[in-house]
Amino acid sequence: MPDPNAPDASASPSHGGFPATLSWNGSALRLLDQTRLPAEETYVDVTAVEALEDCIRRLVVRGAPAIGCAAAFGVVLCARESAGAPATAQWLADFEARCAHLAATRPTAVNLKWAVERCRNAALQLRRSGREQLLAGLEKEALAIHEEDKRMCEAIGRHGAELLRAILKGRTTATLMTHCNAGALATGGMGTALAVMYAAQQAGLSLQVFADETRPLLQGARLTAWELSRAGIPVTVICDNMAASVMRRYKPDAVIVGADRIAANGDTANKIGTYGLAVLARHHGIPFYVAAPYSTFDLSLRDGSQIPIEERARQEIAEQQGKAAVPAQAGVFNPAFDVTPAELIAAHITEKGVLKPPYK
Amino acid sequence: MPDPNAPDASASPSHGGFPATLSWNGSALRLLDQTRLPAEETYVDVTAVEALEDCIRRLVVRGAPAIGCAAAFGVVLCARESAGAPATAQWLADFEARCAHLAATRPTAVNLKWAVERCRNAALQLRRSGREQLLAGLEKEALAIHEEDKRMCEAIGRHGAELLRAILKGRTTATLMTHCNAGALATGGMGTALAVMYAAQQAGLSLQVFADETRPLLQGARLTAWELSRAGIPVTVICDNMAASVMRRYKPDAVIVGADRIAANGDTANKIGTYGLAVLARHHGIPFYVAAPYSTFDLSLRDGSQIPIEERARQEIAEQQGKAAVPAQAGVFNPAFDVTPAELIAAHITEKGVLKPPYK
Repeated sequence: MPDPNAPDASASPSHGGFPATLSWNGSALRLLDQTRLPAEETYVDVTAVEALEDCIRRLVVRGAPAIGCAAAFGVVLCARESAGAPATAQWLADFEARCAHLAATRPTAVNLKWAVERCRNAALQLRRSGREQLLAGLEKEALAIHEEDKRMCEAIGRHGAELLRAILKGRTTATLMTHCNAGALATGGMGTALAVMYAAQQAGLSLQVFADETRPLLQGARLTAWELSRAGIPVTVICDNMAASVMRRYKPDAVIVGADRIAANGDTANKIGTYGLAVLARHHGIPFYVAAPYSTFDLSLRDGSQIPIEERARQEIAEQQGKAAVPAQAGVFNPAFDVTPAELIAAHITEKGVLKPPYK
Repeated sequence: MPDPNAPDASASPSHGGFPATLSWNGSALRLLDQTRLPAEETYVDVTAVEALEDCIRRLVVRGAPAIGCAAAFGVVLCARESAGAPATAQWLADFEARCAHLAATRPTAVNLKWAVERCRNAALQLRRSGREQLLAGLEKEALAIHEEDKRMCEAIGRHGAELLRAILKGRTTATLMTHCNAGALATGGMGTALAVMYAAQQAGLSLQVFADETRPLLQGARLTAWELSRAGIPVTVICDNMAASVMRRYKPDAVIVGADRIAANGDTANKIGTYGLAVLARHHGIPFYVAAPYSTFDLSLRDGSQIPIEERARQEIAEQQGKAAVPAQAGVFNPAFDVTPAELIAAHITEKGVLKPPYK
């Protein structure tokens, strides 16, 4: 009987740290190819904006903050590829068209539009300074966005690790649970929910993490398990329907997840399955935390009922191993997100500190 | 946005009734090949005990009651294949060896051993009556076992449909949820949890069923969705982690599941995920029912902590679409069952009626 608390394969830590999802070498954007994980750790060097758009669409790079950082460097490529001198109307039209095309690559990722817009504005201010100065200025802006993302992740990790130490009351070992991937792979830095784990490990805590595989797209099994075990944090993958058994049997100290959008009252939209996990955590007396940048709060939304929930293709559930797992006559319901009511969330861990309700 | 309450593919009912998982034509046992579902509805005619054992091992036939019925006909094949006249010591030794081999095909299925033992005893009493009489008597015993299983299923369906009518208080439409496959495919008759749905449909209720896909082996997606839609009952498949969202959004009238073993105090072992579903049902105020033959109660066990939980192979979770979905360094925890405490169960629906705690 495999015992997740006993030494097993995951007890041979690689101590590789968290992965660099993206990096800029002055001429190319290097992306860790997430479509090939966990089988292969391979990188793609992107030197043209069209290739970057293809990578965003194919989920070579994913996660709203990571896409934002990649798009910032994408604007450098847009400027580089635009024809003529930057001060000319021809260059401007070409540049604007390329930026708009890049921003539309994935319509739902807010960070993508935001990063393109910020870099585009920087470019417009530098148009009359000449090509070299414009490219250097744009590169600086993109590096700043990436750097801010890294610092945001570090701050979330720091605040989360302090919170964890407080609830452990002197213990130096902790069992944690997480869902989907709110890790380094989803950001330009060390992640959000997983940043708390990396920071806790750096602070000397000994962790054991249970990761839900996260159907239908398996980000927990493929990505979270990969990046945590690469960093030497023992991780055990379970099917989503095993979370209740794990809570009863292993009594985790906390559940920590990420977020896609947070309403003004603290209701939190995140990957489908998060809400059920929060209900199970409440039933078992386990604190449930959401780690996310402060920018994830959408104060224009009163509560979670105003957050639109994307529904995705039948085929994500109905096809497995290349054949039909669901008969053609049966329906399929495939919401990509759910909303966890604020009353099930012990606190939101942000770069500005640990926020508890009531918000505002 | 697909709305499970709106007409869709599942609204074209086939009205094929529940499938005949197994049938005996006097010389061969016809098995519905469950390994090919839902893609193909094909049948295998078994005329030799070795072929039957292969079918049990490969899960062509599965579900404890269905395996028991198949094994009863298997003893007819054992007797037919044994060499010499039944009254001879040679025949006896051959027959006993074949029965023991058949009974050991799947060591955990209690019904398999029970059915082989019952038919073996019938054979021993008929040994001196001659070959033809022995085979006729054995066939009669196997048909009786199959018939008793069918009647057990019908009685569970009848009691469950009455219960359902009572909680619907005059309404004629109901939304139900289920997990794994406790259907006709798992029994010699119309199933246990799904028998309640078939009986409710026959009694004129209009049903909408949500079926958890049931990771890792997908019995809900592959088998439950197939047999319900074949019978004209609209069914919508969801990933296990979507159950909480479905409960909040569609407010099901009841959750009905099967059982593998029930302790004296009502604690119930069933497919992994059942316990979590029961916690979610309690949180949403939805009654949670277990439908199972009375023989599933194991009165020798005081409570659920005494029920052993089988853990299965890593590969069931770690491999998907033929490639590694979990990195090699990560652990995997794969319990096949969980135990739902009696206090989360509104009632057990058995062929003897609806039982509520306290038991004994």
